[in-house]
Amino acid sequence: MDSNNWRERLYVIIFQTDTVAGRRFDSTLLLIILASLVIVMLDSIDSVHQNYAPLLAAIEWGFTFIFIVEYGLRLYCSPKPLRYAFSFYGLVDLLAIVPGILALYYSDAQYLLIVRIIRMLRIFRVLKLSPYLKQANYLMAALRGSKQKIIVFLVSVSTLVTVFGTLMYVIEGPANGFTSIPKGIYWAIVTLTTVGFGDIVPKTPLGQVVSSLVMITGYSIIAVPTGIFTAELATAMRGADQLKHDCPVCSKNNHDHGAAFCSRCGNALFKKLE
Amino acid sequence: MDSNNWRERLYVIIFQTDTVAGRRFDSTLLLIILASLVIVMLDSIDSVHQNYAPLLAAIEWGFTFIFIVEYGLRLYCSPKPLRYAFSFYGLVDLLAIVPGILALYYSDAQYLLIVRIIRMLRIFRVLKLSPYLKQANYLMAALRGSKQKIIVFLVSVSTLVTVFGTLMYVIEGPANGFTSIPKGIYWAIVTLTTVGFGDIVPKTPLGQVVSSLVMITGYSIIAVPTGIFTAELATAMRGADQLKHDCPVCSKNNHDHGAAFCSRCGNALFKKLE
Amino acid sequence: MDSNNWRERLYVIIFQTDTVAGRRFDSTLLLIILASLVIVMLDSIDSVHQNYAPLLAAIEWGFTFIFIVEYGLRLYCSPKPLRYAFSFYGLVDLLAIVPGILALYYSDAQYLLIVRIIRMLRIFRVLKLSPYLKQANYLMAALRGSKQKIIVFLVSVSTLVTVFGTLMYVIEGPANGFTSIPKGIYWAIVTLTTVGFGDIVPKTPLGQVVSSLVMITGYSIIAVPTGIFTAELATAMRGADQLKHDCPVCSKNNHDHGAAFCSRCGNALFKKLE
Amino acid sequence: MDSNNWRERLYVIIFQTDTVAGRRFDSTLLLIILASLVIVMLDSIDSVHQNYAPLLAAIEWGFTFIFIVEYGLRLYCSPKPLRYAFSFYGLVDLLAIVPGILALYYSDAQYLLIVRIIRMLRIFRVLKLSPYLKQANYLMAALRGSKQKIIVFLVSVSTLVTVFGTLMYVIEGPANGFTSIPKGIYWAIVTLTTVGFGDIVPKTPLGQVVSSLVMITGYSIIAVPTGIFTAELATAMRGADQLKHDCPVCSKNNHDHGAAFCSRCGNALFKKLE
Repeated sequence: MDSNNWRERLYVIIFQTDTVAGRRFDSTLLLIILASLVIVMLDSIDSVHQNYAPLLAAIEWGFTFIFIVEYGLRLYCSPKPLRYAFSFYGLVDLLAIVPGILALYYSDAQYLLIVRIIRMLRIFRVLKLSPYLKQANYLMAALRGSKQKIIVFLVSVSTLVTVFGTLMYVIEGPANGFTSIPKGIYWAIVTLTTVGFGDIVPKTPLGQVVSSLVMITGYSIIAVPTGIFTAELATAMRGADQLKHDCPVCSKNNHDHGAAFCSRCGNALFKKLE
Repeated sequence: MDSNNWRERLYVIIFQTDTVAGRRFDSTLLLIILASLVIVMLDSIDSVHQNYAPLLAAIEWGFTFIFIVEYGLRLYCSPKPLRYAFSFYGLVDLLAIVPGILALYYSDAQYLLIVRIIRMLRIFRVLKLSPYLKQANYLMAALRGSKQKIIVFLVSVSTLVTVFGTLMYVIEGPANGFTSIPKGIYWAIVTLTTVGFGDIVPKTPLGQVVSSLVMITGYSIIAVPTGIFTAELATAMRGADQLKHDCPVCSKNNHDHGAAFCSRCGNALFKKLE
Repeated sequence: MDSNNWRERLYVIIFQTDTVAGRRFDSTLLLIILASLVIVMLDSIDSVHQNYAPLLAAIEWGFTFIFIVEYGLRLYCSPKPLRYAFSFYGLVDLLAIVPGILALYYSDAQYLLIVRIIRMLRIFRVLKLSPYLKQANYLMAALRGSKQKIIVFLVSVSTLVTVFGTLMYVIEGPANGFTSIPKGIYWAIVTLTTVGFGDIVPKTPLGQVVSSLVMITGYSIIAVPTGIFTAELATAMRGADQLKHDCPVCSKNNHDHGAAFCSRCGNALFKKLE
Repeated sequence: MDSNNWRERLYVIIFQTDTVAGRRFDSTLLLIILASLVIVMLDSIDSVHQNYAPLLAAIEWGFTFIFIVEYGLRLYCSPKPLRYAFSFYGLVDLLAIVPGILALYYSDAQYLLIVRIIRMLRIFRVLKLSPYLKQANYLMAALRGSKQKIIVFLVSVSTLVTVFGTLMYVIEGPANGFTSIPKGIYWAIVTLTTVGFGDIVPKTPLGQVVSSLVMITGYSIIAVPTGIFTAELATAMRGADQLKHDCPVCSKNNHDHGAAFCSRCGNALFKKLE
């Protein structure tokens, strides 16, 4: 009984965010994850690594230890441990531990620690949860709604960069940096997306004319995904604050939030209790 | 009779996508086209070419052979061979063969093989056809609707880059990389589209001031094609779910969103149940 | 009388685009202007200039001569020569001649010939005129409607680049290419507009952090002019096909094009002739 | 009495913009601020600094003196000096003086003078005030409305650049310029935002494939903030001209666009003249 009580209290603290203790736990956890990420990043800087490698490794191991304990507690206090273990967050939590253990044997494995960044998704649980999820839902709805348009768009873009990349390979040739068709395609992507690194640039007049075409195309068709997404998002947002309920008389099918009567034909939307 | 049966079955497999066999045929074809494209790309890489040129040429010839057979079968089983031969897909299918044959005599002709990418358009037939076409139709409708606005936009952009390009040629001069007016225009396009390769950059203070102007212009007017396309797309999408309801008196068949009375004959669109 | 007839016919040909002769005249003129621009561009290429300078100068002078004759004819056949001379097109036509004459004395003046590109605006007269003007009007209406928002936006951007440019000058210093505050501002504009030439790049870690901030800001606030313009354009387009007429009963103030009755209250919009 | 009158007149001139004198004062002040900023910028240019440093320092001190006098007058004529001193503008006015005084002792402090740019915000008071503020309000409303979506977006982008940056560090390694994970993240930001400096570029084929992914992602998701902002702005603008008409029965005061019946009480919004 006593142990069960303890487990339940632990469950509330670790898994829920309604209580003060629960939110404090999640905030602390986020800070630890963030600190762990910073350590990984610092360790990748050569001058830091040469001076503080053992210290950083120790700290990193400390974090891994904390995460192991946390994972153990989660398994322990969860009413259905297996269900947690195979849930999305459960797998992510496990993934956050494994590279730390592997790093004991293979030092390169430490870079895998960066997967811990996925745990940062918990940040939405610490911030007031629901409004963010609702907004994410809008974005998701807009993306889902535009999925097919996006595929049409991506296929078109892929075709464009392949054609332009090959064309530039033929025109400019290896002497000007276009050493192969894949390189040409890479250049076409760099140019079409308006990134423009400048590591490979057209040198021949004809190549510059084709480049200009690629650039103006890229500059213009950015309007396409933007237009698609904007239109879908506007639809998703409009849809969300309107009632989906067919008026029995005129079949107007979206109404003001909280409407009792149809604003077009004036009929009661729901039968009155007479 | 037997031969006719065989031809009909072949026709269904090759030209249609409703049957399992038909879709499997199209999927296989797409994979072969993709493989053929990959081979062309690989062959363009110098180190690969030097080691495997004969092998790749053989494979490429194999693919060309497959496409020749496929083209022959299409001609054979098509009820109207000539109509197929001069249709869009028919010409593309022919185009996919010619460079392979030419490559036997002129080795550079192999790059023409990249035209095979056009055959990838068949991908929309393998994926569930109609919803994609409907989405493509929306995009097309939006593009058609904004055609004139786009021409106005492109003429304005052309004028801008010519003026700015000449201005930069006069200001910066050949010493700073602006060796001619066309080069200046090329630079203006690179800059206005926010690509910014960095192969030619302004060095004089006045040149940098003019550049800043070009960049801010480019950064701002990207809003124009985006705005045009978004507004047109929204219109095209709204048009699709506008109120389609015939007025009982004058049978006007599309009305304001939420119209209660017909705007042409003034009759109530929905009778009230009194 | 005879001379007057001739002048009138000339007027119709030169100034109007309704007749076949008039449109042919305008098309020819556009081609000559284009050819003249191409000659100026060619002449600016060093290798071409060294070989063909006298030829190109002769051709250019030929074009100038044609434009002088055309300007003379316009003045001659115009019913109100002075009004034409001081109209927008009249001044542009004059501007297209002056540099050609100046170039006889100062060879550098030839680059001024590029002002002839302004004459290309006549292109909208050759293409079917009115729909393009209507579209340009939409764009103009959208720009006018968003003028104040754009000023707010430009003032904010100017402030941002000044602050960021100074910050980077202080952080990076002359050793890393940020030789002065104006140079820092130039860099900030290059970066904020996502052009990214790469001629000046941050080298210190702190500078790269600030740069990241500038880039993400620039990447995000591009949404602002786009959003402003899109919203205004949508409004301008919606407004254009709706009738502005207050319903006398419910004062609904925009109606379907050609609406005879208010779609909200069903009242006749215009008094009937009883 | 006499002194009070003088203070009141001074107050009207310095703090208000309704009178001619008041607007002239603000315009003059803006010009002085601008001149002061130009001097700071000029002084940062090495060649100018070496020749005119004493002169520029003197001018700058003159400006600082003017601002001190102005600050004193504001404190003197303000009815509630403390309230002004701790208001936003009061603090900015103070900030505009401090660096000028500090510069007497530490010459580097002069760069802090750039904070004077914040004073340029007064420009909106000189231009006709209210329409700009209204427009700024729209923009603010749109930004507020999209705050949560923007946070979701920024967290996603941060995660993306961290993952991609680490990936590129592992793939390309220090030999190709990716000397540490933070550097990789910096590169990912440069690439995702389509800035593309070109100071660090992928050299390995795998790195170029991942880069292409980053670029296409960056090119596509720019649609997200744009879409969010556009949709919110359109909503904010639509809200402003929504139907404000009180229902005669339940006095619900905003209704669907084109509503004929109140959606809360079902009463006709507009009586028909029968």
